[in-house]
Amino acid sequence: MTMKLKHKHSRKAGLPPGTLVHIGEKKSDAVTITVYEYGEGQFQERSVAKPDEVILTGEPTVRWVDVGGIHKMEVLETFGKMFGLHPLLLEDIANTDQRPKLDDYGTYGYVVLKMLYEGQHEGDINVEQVSLVFGENYVLSFQENGGDVFQGVKERLRNGKGRLRHAGADYLLYALMDSIVDRYFVILESLGEKIELLQDVCVTNPGPETLRDIHALKRQLLYFRRSVWPLRDLMNNLSRSDGQFLQGSTKVFFRDVYDHIIQIGDTVETLREMVSSMMEVYLSSVSYRLNGVMKVLTIITTIFMPLSFIASIYGMNFEHMPELKSPWGYPAVLGVMAATGLAMLYFFKQKKWL
Amino acid sequence: MTMKLKHKHSRKAGLPPGTLVHIGEKKSDAVTITVYEYGEGQFQERSVAKPDEVILTGEPTVRWVDVGGIHKMEVLETFGKMFGLHPLLLEDIANTDQRPKLDDYGTYGYVVLKMLYEGQHEGDINVEQVSLVFGENYVLSFQENGGDVFQGVKERLRNGKGRLRHAGADYLLYALMDSIVDRYFVILESLGEKIELLQDVCVTNPGPETLRDIHALKRQLLYFRRSVWPLRDLMNNLSRSDGQFLQGSTKVFFRDVYDHIIQIGDTVETLREMVSSMMEVYLSSVSYRLNGVMKVLTIITTIFMPLSFIASIYGMNFEHMPELKSPWGYPAVLGVMAATGLAMLYFFKQKKWL
Amino acid sequence: MTMKLKHKHSRKAGLPPGTLVHIGEKKSDAVTITVYEYGEGQFQERSVAKPDEVILTGEPTVRWVDVGGIHKMEVLETFGKMFGLHPLLLEDIANTDQRPKLDDYGTYGYVVLKMLYEGQHEGDINVEQVSLVFGENYVLSFQENGGDVFQGVKERLRNGKGRLRHAGADYLLYALMDSIVDRYFVILESLGEKIELLQDVCVTNPGPETLRDIHALKRQLLYFRRSVWPLRDLMNNLSRSDGQFLQGSTKVFFRDVYDHIIQIGDTVETLREMVSSMMEVYLSSVSYRLNGVMKVLTIITTIFMPLSFIASIYGMNFEHMPELKSPWGYPAVLGVMAATGLAMLYFFKQKKWL
Amino acid sequence: MTMKLKHKHSRKAGLPPGTLVHIGEKKSDAVTITVYEYGEGQFQERSVAKPDEVILTGEPTVRWVDVGGIHKMEVLETFGKMFGLHPLLLEDIANTDQRPKLDDYGTYGYVVLKMLYEGQHEGDINVEQVSLVFGENYVLSFQENGGDVFQGVKERLRNGKGRLRHAGADYLLYALMDSIVDRYFVILESLGEKIELLQDVCVTNPGPETLRDIHALKRQLLYFRRSVWPLRDLMNNLSRSDGQFLQGSTKVFFRDVYDHIIQIGDTVETLREMVSSMMEVYLSSVSYRLNGVMKVLTIITTIFMPLSFIASIYGMNFEHMPELKSPWGYPAVLGVMAATGLAMLYFFKQKKWL
Amino acid sequence: MTMKLKHKHSRKAGLPPGTLVHIGEKKSDAVTITVYEYGEGQFQERSVAKPDEVILTGEPTVRWVDVGGIHKMEVLETFGKMFGLHPLLLEDIANTDQRPKLDDYGTYGYVVLKMLYEGQHEGDINVEQVSLVFGENYVLSFQENGGDVFQGVKERLRNGKGRLRHAGADYLLYALMDSIVDRYFVILESLGEKIELLQDVCVTNPGPETLRDIHALKRQLLYFRRSVWPLRDLMNNLSRSDGQFLQGSTKVFFRDVYDHIIQIGDTVETLREMVSSMMEVYLSSVSYRLNGVMKVLTIITTIFMPLSFIASIYGMNFEHMPELKSPWGYPAVLGVMAATGLAMLYFFKQKKWL
Repeated sequence: MTMKLKHKHSRKAGLPPGTLVHIGEKKSDAVTITVYEYGEGQFQERSVAKPDEVILTGEPTVRWVDVGGIHKMEVLETFGKMFGLHPLLLEDIANTDQRPKLDDYGTYGYVVLKMLYEGQHEGDINVEQVSLVFGENYVLSFQENGGDVFQGVKERLRNGKGRLRHAGADYLLYALMDSIVDRYFVILESLGEKIELLQDVCVTNPGPETLRDIHALKRQLLYFRRSVWPLRDLMNNLSRSDGQFLQGSTKVFFRDVYDHIIQIGDTVETLREMVSSMMEVYLSSVSYRLNGVMKVLTIITTIFMPLSFIASIYGMNFEHMPELKSPWGYPAVLGVMAATGLAMLYFFKQKKWL
Repeated sequence: MTMKLKHKHSRKAGLPPGTLVHIGEKKSDAVTITVYEYGEGQFQERSVAKPDEVILTGEPTVRWVDVGGIHKMEVLETFGKMFGLHPLLLEDIANTDQRPKLDDYGTYGYVVLKMLYEGQHEGDINVEQVSLVFGENYVLSFQENGGDVFQGVKERLRNGKGRLRHAGADYLLYALMDSIVDRYFVILESLGEKIELLQDVCVTNPGPETLRDIHALKRQLLYFRRSVWPLRDLMNNLSRSDGQFLQGSTKVFFRDVYDHIIQIGDTVETLREMVSSMMEVYLSSVSYRLNGVMKVLTIITTIFMPLSFIASIYGMNFEHMPELKSPWGYPAVLGVMAATGLAMLYFFKQKKWL
Repeated sequence: MTMKLKHKHSRKAGLPPGTLVHIGEKKSDAVTITVYEYGEGQFQERSVAKPDEVILTGEPTVRWVDVGGIHKMEVLETFGKMFGLHPLLLEDIANTDQRPKLDDYGTYGYVVLKMLYEGQHEGDINVEQVSLVFGENYVLSFQENGGDVFQGVKERLRNGKGRLRHAGADYLLYALMDSIVDRYFVILESLGEKIELLQDVCVTNPGPETLRDIHALKRQLLYFRRSVWPLRDLMNNLSRSDGQFLQGSTKVFFRDVYDHIIQIGDTVETLREMVSSMMEVYLSSVSYRLNGVMKVLTIITTIFMPLSFIASIYGMNFEHMPELKSPWGYPAVLGVMAATGLAMLYFFKQKKWL
Repeated sequence: MTMKLKHKHSRKAGLPPGTLVHIGEKKSDAVTITVYEYGEGQFQERSVAKPDEVILTGEPTVRWVDVGGIHKMEVLETFGKMFGLHPLLLEDIANTDQRPKLDDYGTYGYVVLKMLYEGQHEGDINVEQVSLVFGENYVLSFQENGGDVFQGVKERLRNGKGRLRHAGADYLLYALMDSIVDRYFVILESLGEKIELLQDVCVTNPGPETLRDIHALKRQLLYFRRSVWPLRDLMNNLSRSDGQFLQGSTKVFFRDVYDHIIQIGDTVETLREMVSSMMEVYLSSVSYRLNGVMKVLTIITTIFMPLSFIASIYGMNFEHMPELKSPWGYPAVLGVMAATGLAMLYFFKQKKWL
Repeated sequence: MTMKLKHKHSRKAGLPPGTLVHIGEKKSDAVTITVYEYGEGQFQERSVAKPDEVILTGEPTVRWVDVGGIHKMEVLETFGKMFGLHPLLLEDIANTDQRPKLDDYGTYGYVVLKMLYEGQHEGDINVEQVSLVFGENYVLSFQENGGDVFQGVKERLRNGKGRLRHAGADYLLYALMDSIVDRYFVILESLGEKIELLQDVCVTNPGPETLRDIHALKRQLLYFRRSVWPLRDLMNNLSRSDGQFLQGSTKVFFRDVYDHIIQIGDTVETLREMVSSMMEVYLSSVSYRLNGVMKVLTIITTIFMPLSFIASIYGMNFEHMPELKSPWGYPAVLGVMAATGLAMLYFFKQKKWL
């Protein structure tokens, strides 16, 4: 889904609450389910065809189930039964029009956030909703398409480097959220570059398409802020919560992500102010050009109107116009005209209109 | 009532407080009263002519009285006596100019909200005030006209599907409020579509009626926000309250409605910013057009003024103008004119005015 | 006092604090004092010449002293001594430039608010400051002129209808404040009507006086908000206070007034946004008209400049201009002119400038 | 110091903190020190040459030391030693670029505020920083120049009227602050008058100097707000504090000053909104005038262009132009011109351009 | 690094959290490490080549390690091991894109802030990130380049003047932060001067480069505020914290820095409002000039159009134009022209267009 505001919620209006209806773009591709089971000395990665095969014998320290595709309702319902999830939570996973939030369901928690990544066409920003359900020793992640944002986490799990394999499910939750938030910086950077490009255009060559670009940027920033800002409270709550899942040593990491969100929020505000300034520059650049056009118009009119008037006087057909008979009349009039024109030019030079 | 700001409150100024005066559009149609009584294995639906017939023998688990029409004062007063309601509450029901709010009267609660639905004419948004009084095992709903917003809830009650028939009065309260809030998404969607249409018009064909449309949209969003935003605190209070009517398991549903309200509020803010942007686009589009007109004016003036001046020189009647006698005078002047005109055009091309 | 911003406070600068100086318009009319004494079976209304006659023998359940005119310092001082009021409170009563507020002096409370009512000239809004001092069984009300805002309360006291005669001084306080707040709705309604009228003028016939009207409205709304908004905290405090004067059953009434204030505040904000929009409409309506004027100018210039140029060519006095001798020269030139003019008109039609 | 923004703080950058450097305008005048000692039956006023002479034998109930001039560092240091003041406090006294604030140093308190008074030139507002140090039975006041703002308080002390002579140091502190705050009303009034004058100018005769005046006013209000607004928290803290210096009976007076500050803040906001409106009026008044100029231009062009075109047709030199020979040609053409001109005028009348 | 918005964070996206990657401009210069060890009677200053040499035998009262250059990861890691610092803290030191913040790690604290100083080119403002790690008896300071901001502190340490040598590590922390904050005043002052210069340009000679300067200033202020404002909470926390490192007597100094931050914030807001005003002045100054140009255009057109029209009438070639034969025709027409022109000029004088 590219960055557009769609309110597909209405499809559900009238249905009983808790009804599972996938709200998003209908897709026909299959759902991919990958299970990662790991602990202090173990690691296993399995691709699974049906949700029933997720839990086999043998309980690992941490189990991460990564689900790509949320359009198959029966899959979600099976997960709901297996992990004892609330119907409203399943409804939230299926509805891709969610606002980022954190819900505490007692024995498990639910986080929904927006994953942003650049699309194939330049300037496109793709949005994907990611739902994370986390319990004492498991994390379930639901993506719309199964993008590659979690690729880094998976690599680190596979090669066993860093803290990840030795820590609990709470650290895995952190790693997943951190990898999503890190992507925001990439998007922000590309937005910043677009703004700097547009700023030059505003001064040198403003046109109606500049205006459209400014407003497109404004809307993208608006959407970006909407996606990121709710994470602030969310991360704050996570880093301060006394939940049973989060260990004290992990909280400092969530606080770090919180700091990143604050920093992103600051930068977004700065970019928004820059876009507003840009609008001002655009408008005053257009009006400055209008001014320039007006000056040329005025100068032409002001110089030629008196000259033409003089010429038209001597174009009158009165019988008694003594100047007409004088042999010096013509050159004298031409001289007067030249003098008038030059005086005008001098006047404009002084007024700084030239 | 279509979306207009009417302050009919003044009709009451001077009367003692607690006086029942219906503030809204006077209507002559009869009041419709429907009673739904249901419990674990029972369900009964009765249409009732007088409020006295609402309570018969046999106490059901939950009783819902749906009243369509609030203009008959004696009906409200009878309900007031039957359920022991405070005079100020009855006054609030009769006054359709209420702000959404939640009042706690100890043994019963009172919620007032605005029901929005699209009218017959395209773009019309109808507003109806809905008052909900809820006690331990009953819910009273008062609508202005008795629209079809609760139709879905009624259907679910009749066919016994879903959780509704098995839950208490608090879940019924939730179901009614949820059906009202779900309608907001429909309205929001149609407002969003209108905005996207207008945005194109702003760039391609802006006119005074565009301005009027923008401001109409602005006002509708303003009104929409006023109707929806107070629900935020209301839902938050409901989902956190320790009242005697709301069971813990129902609170999670109210929290879900709260999330919807937050999401609606977010979208309204986005739409409002889009409308503001649209205004900017409109203004700068109009000014860009003015610029275009000015350029044409300047070019025409700048090209023809010098040419006419040259012609007027040779229209002078001096006896001693040697050029006039030369056989090459005429073609030479025409040549000079053509050269001047082409030079001008080249100058404008360079200035990017053409 | 009509709605103007006057800062008369400076007259006091330099005097010792607590000095009684009437700040407001000096008046020579006498002060009117009316005493209402009532209880469960009794009611007495007395007009009194001097403040000393207010308290006679026999203690009623509730005593209300309504004072019209606050410019006689000795009257205020007598009341101060009789009821043991703080000098700063008396100073506040005498100073009509107060902000609405609630002061708790332990054994009595002090409320000051603004009474708004329409003046004799259309559009005039009169402002009068009302001070209410309330103790356990009395209420003192001080008005600037003694208007008729309390007329409804007095009527209800006289005919003994409603709750008023049977309730305590706290309910009387509520009734007085409610009658003042109810007037706000009337003012708001008339402001709303003015705005709707002006909105049409902005589109159809904007002129400099429109601008002046918009700003007058803006200022009235600003003043209105200043008068009303502080009441919000005030009412909230009254409806939540655990003071010794307010009974629990009266608090629900103060909460009702609080709801009205919130509603008024909402409407004022809406009206303010509408006035801002109106300003935008005005400006862009003026600029749209400028645009229209510019188009006409451009069209006229663009059509006649080339035509005049053609004519001026054949007005040149060259001896060798073969066209001049041709019998078809004149009609041919006229034809060329007509063709050029029509081509121009077609061009403008296409550009949508006509 | 007239109202200008000067950042003289930098002179100190690099020095060790707590270093006494007078930041303000260097002055060479001597420092004036006046001591007021009073109690229930006593009052003494002494002018003192050196700070060492401030404390003589005999302990009064209250001692007020009024110091005019803070540019002599040795004087401040002597006071610092005599009253045991913190070095940072002395630094704050010497630095006239302070923000109003209240510091609690345990055994004494420190208040710094801005004294505003009108200068000699009309429209000038002078700013002077006043530092008040208050202990159990003394108040030290430090002014930059020793203006006459405290004159009223001194008079009241001398003639022994009012509460001042009988109250403690806390009441003296209140009296001094009250006399400063009362001056704000005078300034506010004169700012309000300036705004009303400018508002007329904006409509009747706007020019570039109007713009400069508007922005000067805007800046003065900005500065005024900066000087006054921090007093709000300050007074609130004083009126609520449980410090050892403030008696309960004095707190009600500080609350009164707090109310004044709130009222001043309200008025400043109103004035600021009026200045913003004025800017709008100015701009739209200028643009309305531009509109008027454009209309005249258009009308002149529109009327004379066709007329001149007609004349230029009959100025062509074709041999075969039958109209030229007709005796009615000339009057007929004049008639056509007159008719065309009148038709144009009628058209403009209808378009409301005249 | 000059004041530009660069988002280099993205270089890290995809790496495991806690990975040390220097985010900033790559540098090849060596890292300078200076150790200051001092106590009541001792002081030693050592330049050190490797971080391992920082701690020798003999424990001083306070040890300050000033590190210039943070691009060598191995240096940071060595410090991390020596002082037992959290990996995330080291990551924050290496990342120069931090927002000012205070982190409490239990046995040590971490402060990051921005050091601003003027660059070599006029108007340039250089930004350098400073990280301060403080424990019970040590302070580690990390600068990007090792500028001279701490020079004053070093001097005071060396010559032993003031409180510094006798106080603990908390006072050193204060002295370092104070010297950074003092620099802000210098920057603010130079920004204020730039604004005053630009304000004159806006009125006297506005051009497109003025606009660019205004927006550059706006951005600098925006960046300045972003660097300074977070310090407010930071200082407030420090001055109120009950940490084990800060002694009560030092807190009053942190409160002093807090006051400075508030004052800086106030001034920044004032400057921002002045820049906004400047934008308004610029725009209306440009539009006022346009107005002036339009007036000249209108006057020229209005004066010469009727005159030319009169001349063109008598340029017509009708045979029967009696005026042409009259000997007074020519002077009469000239007289009419002069009269018309003068009447026009009088009209414009009255309209105040001249």
